[in-house]
Amino acid sequence: MANVAKKVSWSNKDDEDRPGELTPLLNGSPTASPAQTNFFRIERLTTVNLDDDLTQDQDGVSTTNVSKEIQHNEKLLSLKYESLDYDNSENQLFMEEERRISKIGFHVLEIKRWIVCCLIGIFTGLIACFIDIVVEKLADIKYMQIKQNIDKSTENGGLSISLVLWASLNAGFVMIGSILVAFVEPAAAGSGIPQIKCYLNGVKVSHVVRLKTLVVKVLGVIFSVVGGLAVGKEGPMIHSGAVIAAGISQGRSSTLKKDFKIFEYFRRDTEKRDFVSAGAAAGVSAAFGAPVGGVLFSLEEGASFWNQMLTWRIFFASMISTFTLNFVLSIYHGNPGDLSSPGLINFGQFQSEAVQYNWYEIPVFMCVGAIGGILGAVFNRLNYCLTMFRIRYIHRPCLQVIEAMLVGAVTATVSFIMIYAMYSSDCQPIGEDPIKYPLQMFCSDGEYNVIATTFFNTPEKSVCSLFHDSPGSYNPLTLGLFTLSYFFLACWTYGLAVSSGIFIPSLLIGAAWGRLFGIFLSNISSDPSWADPGKYALMGAAAQLGGIVRMTLSLTVIIVEATGNVTYGLPIMLVLMTAKIFGDFCIEGLYDIHIKLQSVPFLGWEPPEKSHSLTAREVMSYPVTCFKRLEKVGRIVDILSDTATNHNGFPVVDENHEPEYDNVGRLCGLILRSQLIVLLKHKVFVERANSTLTQRKLQLKDFRDAYPRFPPIQSIHVSQDERHCTMDLTDFMNPTPYSVPGEASLPRVFRLFRALGLRHLVICDGSNGVIGIVTRKDLARYRLHKGQLEELEMAQT
Amino acid sequence: MANVAKKVSWSNKDDEDRPGELTPLLNGSPTASPAQTNFFRIERLTTVNLDDDLTQDQDGVSTTNVSKEIQHNEKLLSLKYESLDYDNSENQLFMEEERRISKIGFHVLEIKRWIVCCLIGIFTGLIACFIDIVVEKLADIKYMQIKQNIDKSTENGGLSISLVLWASLNAGFVMIGSILVAFVEPAAAGSGIPQIKCYLNGVKVSHVVRLKTLVVKVLGVIFSVVGGLAVGKEGPMIHSGAVIAAGISQGRSSTLKKDFKIFEYFRRDTEKRDFVSAGAAAGVSAAFGAPVGGVLFSLEEGASFWNQMLTWRIFFASMISTFTLNFVLSIYHGNPGDLSSPGLINFGQFQSEAVQYNWYEIPVFMCVGAIGGILGAVFNRLNYCLTMFRIRYIHRPCLQVIEAMLVGAVTATVSFIMIYAMYSSDCQPIGEDPIKYPLQMFCSDGEYNVIATTFFNTPEKSVCSLFHDSPGSYNPLTLGLFTLSYFFLACWTYGLAVSSGIFIPSLLIGAAWGRLFGIFLSNISSDPSWADPGKYALMGAAAQLGGIVRMTLSLTVIIVEATGNVTYGLPIMLVLMTAKIFGDFCIEGLYDIHIKLQSVPFLGWEPPEKSHSLTAREVMSYPVTCFKRLEKVGRIVDILSDTATNHNGFPVVDENHEPEYDNVGRLCGLILRSQLIVLLKHKVFVERANSTLTQRKLQLKDFRDAYPRFPPIQSIHVSQDERHCTMDLTDFMNPTPYSVPGEASLPRVFRLFRALGLRHLVICDGSNGVIGIVTRKDLARYRLHKGQLEELEMAQT
Repeated sequence: MANVAKKVSWSNKDDEDRPGELTPLLNGSPTASPAQTNFFRIERLTTVNLDDDLTQDQDGVSTTNVSKEIQHNEKLLSLKYESLDYDNSENQLFMEEERRISKIGFHVLEIKRWIVCCLIGIFTGLIACFIDIVVEKLADIKYMQIKQNIDKSTENGGLSISLVLWASLNAGFVMIGSILVAFVEPAAAGSGIPQIKCYLNGVKVSHVVRLKTLVVKVLGVIFSVVGGLAVGKEGPMIHSGAVIAAGISQGRSSTLKKDFKIFEYFRRDTEKRDFVSAGAAAGVSAAFGAPVGGVLFSLEEGASFWNQMLTWRIFFASMISTFTLNFVLSIYHGNPGDLSSPGLINFGQFQSEAVQYNWYEIPVFMCVGAIGGILGAVFNRLNYCLTMFRIRYIHRPCLQVIEAMLVGAVTATVSFIMIYAMYSSDCQPIGEDPIKYPLQMFCSDGEYNVIATTFFNTPEKSVCSLFHDSPGSYNPLTLGLFTLSYFFLACWTYGLAVSSGIFIPSLLIGAAWGRLFGIFLSNISSDPSWADPGKYALMGAAAQLGGIVRMTLSLTVIIVEATGNVTYGLPIMLVLMTAKIFGDFCIEGLYDIHIKLQSVPFLGWEPPEKSHSLTAREVMSYPVTCFKRLEKVGRIVDILSDTATNHNGFPVVDENHEPEYDNVGRLCGLILRSQLIVLLKHKVFVERANSTLTQRKLQLKDFRDAYPRFPPIQSIHVSQDERHCTMDLTDFMNPTPYSVPGEASLPRVFRLFRALGLRHLVICDGSNGVIGIVTRKDLARYRLHKGQLEELEMAQT
Repeated sequence: MANVAKKVSWSNKDDEDRPGELTPLLNGSPTASPAQTNFFRIERLTTVNLDDDLTQDQDGVSTTNVSKEIQHNEKLLSLKYESLDYDNSENQLFMEEERRISKIGFHVLEIKRWIVCCLIGIFTGLIACFIDIVVEKLADIKYMQIKQNIDKSTENGGLSISLVLWASLNAGFVMIGSILVAFVEPAAAGSGIPQIKCYLNGVKVSHVVRLKTLVVKVLGVIFSVVGGLAVGKEGPMIHSGAVIAAGISQGRSSTLKKDFKIFEYFRRDTEKRDFVSAGAAAGVSAAFGAPVGGVLFSLEEGASFWNQMLTWRIFFASMISTFTLNFVLSIYHGNPGDLSSPGLINFGQFQSEAVQYNWYEIPVFMCVGAIGGILGAVFNRLNYCLTMFRIRYIHRPCLQVIEAMLVGAVTATVSFIMIYAMYSSDCQPIGEDPIKYPLQMFCSDGEYNVIATTFFNTPEKSVCSLFHDSPGSYNPLTLGLFTLSYFFLACWTYGLAVSSGIFIPSLLIGAAWGRLFGIFLSNISSDPSWADPGKYALMGAAAQLGGIVRMTLSLTVIIVEATGNVTYGLPIMLVLMTAKIFGDFCIEGLYDIHIKLQSVPFLGWEPPEKSHSLTAREVMSYPVTCFKRLEKVGRIVDILSDTATNHNGFPVVDENHEPEYDNVGRLCGLILRSQLIVLLKHKVFVERANSTLTQRKLQLKDFRDAYPRFPPIQSIHVSQDERHCTMDLTDFMNPTPYSVPGEASLPRVFRLFRALGLRHLVICDGSNGVIGIVTRKDLARYRLHKGQLEELEMAQT
């Protein structure tokens, strides 16, 4: 990687210090010409126009070279990430194909899209069933063993052996999950939601939608849940759905090296991203039984342009997914046709008297929201520090596995100590509630230890207990200690090299302190009937989750759907709103923190405020490497091979420009690196046109077959003779790329770029001469920080 | 209107015949230069670039002139409709203002937006309450009178007098509502949903968001519901919400001539349209108790670019609206705090055993969907013919009032005859069901006439009865006759000059035949337990409504929310999907039919299929009237006054172009008619710059104060001296208008136009010279018809 050295001036050389805010450009004259602004630009020349393709040789040298000196920092922007091409290249081949498709052809395509969405729904539902059933079976075995051992030890003494058994069982399960993630496929770590957010935003995250990732993710989440970690199996479902969607829609798997030769038309970023949205929605839908929430999640995270038919299809996939899950699970549980539990987690039916709320409770709910926001911010801050620590010191896979095992053992130990310490204060008679593992411990006969039940259960069931158990079931001290310990355990767990979701732990923490809050309210209130602890547990759960992840509309709908009751809509919305306001005041959402720490060029919904003073001319990268319509093969190969620039898109300019515009050619098209690679591979040279009359003409199919992993330029052999040939780019370039004048403001450029999902936007002067190019990184670089626009640095992290 | 005569060649001269498909342009060479295509274009020159502003003098001569020869036809495109300016004109003034706004200023603006949304929610909820309460009161009085009269007449004879009383009461109420609509504000006719669809699509529909329209709408819907017409009060709520939103967000009313001097920043199309989306969502939410459905309705109909914060605000407005309605109605009904009936209509709780469905019922549901689609298509076809008839023969207001009264009287007569004819067959004992007006008629004592209850009730209550009454409540013959009569009555009613919604009648028709279908199923099935008639009534209602209006995602969510049960999500979705597929095969949705009959330039979600062969050059209007940066006032006034062209946007071109490009100036900006008018009004002339040094500089406020009804050019006096002055447009034009090359394909132009909500898109040649302009009409003109792309004609209807 020759370019690493050159870019040192742009990368953060000092690991310890974060760079100060660099805003020289903002002080430059807004109308300055390129010549005038050269002073500020000179260092950037080596990195310009670099919509880089390191992923092409990701498995090779480049990443390993860089990974030694990890420079994660939220003030950097990584050059590692490519953009997706959401804009069709409307070249001759494309137009010919579109014209060839008959009316029936369009219908067939449409039907195929529906079939793919149906399959996405079915497979996502099945995966969710698989996870659910296996987790249940394994957890049953584990808890049964431990219970028997504890029961025996309570009588005979030797509880420390039970502790060791519990801790080592946990650590064992976690180890398997962690080894899979750390050694086989690191992309499967965590919930995958940040990665899916990035993908839907238009960033190509490598390995994120591969079959191998799916397998590791599914097995990983099973082992981490069974391992007793403070994790949920819901978040990973979203990632799983997305991988399933990408796999099915492409009709082939590169992990299995199998091409089913179906759905070939969908082999481009535009179509694939649409299906991935559907997959993510189906995942949400299966996880929470929330098909509408799933659709809104996809839209909130991914949609740039709302399309009625697409949304309708996404909804269909979601519906099918929750139906499949419900149907299969109902058969598994022995009551086929009972379609009343549509998700992996259901919050259960709230009693109708508990559902009611009074208008004067609304300010109280908003207080709960505020507490959730602040606690969420504390959680995020702690996790941020922990992540920084991990990035610096725990980046070797074996260290990651050891940390995960440690967390597993500690979780078991904390649980055990709490059960042991609280045994006397929290015994309850075994009532009608069907409790699977009533631990007697030191309680009298016919009683069980309540806190043991909370720990001795999957977190999903604990959440439901906190919502629905009758007032008085929980001792406030127990709840307080539980909240505290689970808060820190969950915070420590998120970011481990295991496959895990943050939704359920957040809900559990929130439900615990929400219930505590409810108990407190009913104690101080003269009429305790209105302060149902279950209701406040729900509000607390919403507040805590909202305070951590900061989702808005989709989270409201997900919680309302999981509750199965529309009446709570307004309170939940107000709680989430307050939590978001309070949380945003302190620190960003957890997913955004992790996205920023990965230095992903993520584009928000709106251009940053106060960016109106910046123009395209100040933002763009230049000088631009252009090609002519008829270009020498040698030059193309040289430019593509130049690792110092590594451009991905090249404006094509007209040769017949007038003398006064000698330096800038007039824009007449745009061609991508991937297209040039295919052209070179097929030797589409003007000089060979006659000799290859017998050869078939290059078709769009040839480009699709190479998608998405186009070969690197180094793998294409071009002989010395061929270097003197010419390539005619006219038929292959996009003849009408979007362009804006250099005077356009940053918000204007941003909106165009975001609304159309562009990858390259050419900046032209008054007579259509190419003066620069704007890519995702040029826009993502600007950010509002403490009321000032700041400019991020770019680095090859 | 001098241009009416010139445009005859483009308007449909023959009222009776629809013009054949005109596709000369499609045969033209795709790369033909303007000169080559002149043959096909020559006639269009008089209408080009006409994003017309007839609404400016709408209240004057022009409309009355044209209304004599109404040429509604779905193969025409009206030139009457303006586009909204969703794209900010980023001129110097705008940029200065944006730069002036501090960080706190942005926050204040954001808070103001939330306040406006909250107010929208509250007022929409209150309006819904008002309608509900007044309708209930008046309907009580009416039915009580008739019931007493019938009870008396049954004993004493003289039922014909009861019939006359009923019919004349109906006709009387309908008359008041119809007079209001026909004479005071015709824009309040119908449900208003087509108009709101158009508005959200970006078309300026005159009078649609005025206070007067709201008042007439609210009063009109009260009288038409009380008048016993086959209408609902739900559709008009959407329109009402939109008007409230437009009114509140602008902080002034032109009907009342009152300016509250608040929310001045929001006085532009971009902001106003966002708030109108929120209003429409709040309306749906209040009508059906469906806040999520409301948001999705707004998005489905209006959104071009999904924005997280905007959607979140829309959701907030919806939530507040349904909460207000629920809260006020709970107080009115004497049980304050009972927040369980959040909408004007609630489908009520389905019994838990009825909620279940089996997987083998899914094909049956799809059959219901198919029937709904076909019946919906029949409904739409009949209504289409009726509307054509009305356009031709019933366009005088007094005729419209008479027709409405006739329908009112006929509705009463049909109801009466059916009650009378079926008295023997359909008597039921008065049970636990609380029936408000149990008509005994000829039933024995202690019994009541079932069909009388169906007619003797607001349609909302009848729908709920059909969903929830126990199996066996209804006689199949009664149901069949009811379906048939109500189908034709509802079809006749839609399109009358009254304020009315189609949702409830559709639901009622569907519920009736759905229940019939359910009864049929349980008769033929060996195990009748699964075929609950109430369940099939719900499916039938969904199918019929879907078959008529063809909404997708939003309708599913609305019905699910109104049912309050998520379990039915998948069946309802499948039913709506099947209904849409079958319906679309026959004829378009009812709203689309009415939009097309109004010849509105409505842009769909996607460019028409098979339009890839068209390029911008073939689609655009030309020649374009351009201005120079420094332009003579006389020329500006002349061009603005030219009623033959009536352009609304003018590219500004550079004066210093090279000799070879003499004919086409280089694009350097775009200025709107409205901006020029304000400039002329304030006499912003270069020559007066020195003399007016003491005068304050023109600000954005001056443009906002004139918004949205800019004065016509005729009202601005320009002296002969002033005609020789010069205007410098540089500071006021949009310096970076979007432009595309002439070679861009129609789909590409369409996507750019639609995604960014543009009004004018400049088409340039290779060196940025202006060669044409594309407006909404140029894109809306192309439509797929029977597998072929057809081009609509444009006319000044």
